[in-house]
Amino acid sequence: MREVFQQSLAEVQERLVDIAELVETSIADATGAFGGSDVTRAESVIDGIERIEELAAELDELAIDILARQQPVASDLRLVVGALRMSSSLERMGDLAQHIAQLARYRYPESAIPEGLSKTFVRMGALDVKMAGLIVELLRDQDSSLIDKVRDMDADLDELHAKVFEKVLSDKLANNPTGVVDATLGSRYHERFGDHAVKVAKQMQYFLSGSLD
Amino acid sequence: MREVFQQSLAEVQERLVDIAELVETSIADATGAFGGSDVTRAESVIDGIERIEELAAELDELAIDILARQQPVASDLRLVVGALRMSSSLERMGDLAQHIAQLARYRYPESAIPEGLSKTFVRMGALDVKMAGLIVELLRDQDSSLIDKVRDMDADLDELHAKVFEKVLSDKLANNPTGVVDATLGSRYHERFGDHAVKVAKQMQYFLSGSLD
Repeated sequence: MREVFQQSLAEVQERLVDIAELVETSIADATGAFGGSDVTRAESVIDGIERIEELAAELDELAIDILARQQPVASDLRLVVGALRMSSSLERMGDLAQHIAQLARYRYPESAIPEGLSKTFVRMGALDVKMAGLIVELLRDQDSSLIDKVRDMDADLDELHAKVFEKVLSDKLANNPTGVVDATLGSRYHERFGDHAVKVAKQMQYFLSGSLD
Repeated sequence: MREVFQQSLAEVQERLVDIAELVETSIADATGAFGGSDVTRAESVIDGIERIEELAAELDELAIDILARQQPVASDLRLVVGALRMSSSLERMGDLAQHIAQLARYRYPESAIPEGLSKTFVRMGALDVKMAGLIVELLRDQDSSLIDKVRDMDADLDELHAKVFEKVLSDKLANNPTGVVDATLGSRYHERFGDHAVKVAKQMQYFLSGSLD
């Protein structure tokens, strides 16, 4: 019985890693499509979202099943409860990748990035992709030193997000409402992606240390 | 033991209702502040967010404690797992009310609503407030007939959100990037509020029927 239980917990962890890997691919393709007006990459993100949703729903079922049958306690309970929350954050990260891809597809063959903002968006995209990679590593290796890295990157992302707004509200984009909308939403999606990565990191901290501080 | 358990479950439900009531007040104040440039109401929303976060964290602790000590099954398990998810959706609804209030405060004494969009935002705000009220009712009375009403209102909200974008991208708001940003974010926050209300409704459906369809 104990062995079955340990196997179930290992499976929870593996499935979290699987979903995180798909999210990493999605955000790499989404930010690539956004920066490079690449409609094929944008569509692969949009097509891939269903798989992430399925895997998240299956993981939830597994977690609820473990709660019902095996009554985990202490750190095992924290992993299973954490998995329910992490699956929801990972799913949301996938949604945000999809939103970024949709912006790229709407504007194709034009770019969704208005003039003067390319570098900022490339940096935001690179941070999102790195954060997704750190989340995969964190879920796989359970190395708590990665948690602060995720937080630091999120702070960088917030700064870039503020920069986009400064530019958007300067006169440069007057007469370009489409550009203002794209930059506003695009920046918000990139920034929210980081927030959800931090949520996953916090859940891992809770699992590893029993504390949320 | 069974009695203690039933009391715990009743407490989960009561606390969900308490949080939902605070969210209802927040969104009423936030949309009121947004529509009426009322900085006092905006600040009351911003000050109130901490209480919602505290209550959500306490509810999570209670739910995890019940999972650990009382090993609920069947619909009891669905309520406790659902509570973990609903607390997160309710917290997010509170965040969105706060974001709307912040937009109102930034622009004060001006209005955050650009010309020609007042009526649309009043309707979106009214839908958000109604949806929050339905969620309170649904959590309190567990009346599944309310679930479809929440979904219908969300569809109306999505239509209004699309309308805002039409206006924003027409020429009327050219030369007003601040107005475009406010309308873009304001509309998105109103619309996301509805999405999270639907998530709560779906969780209640799952609790009441055991199915997510």
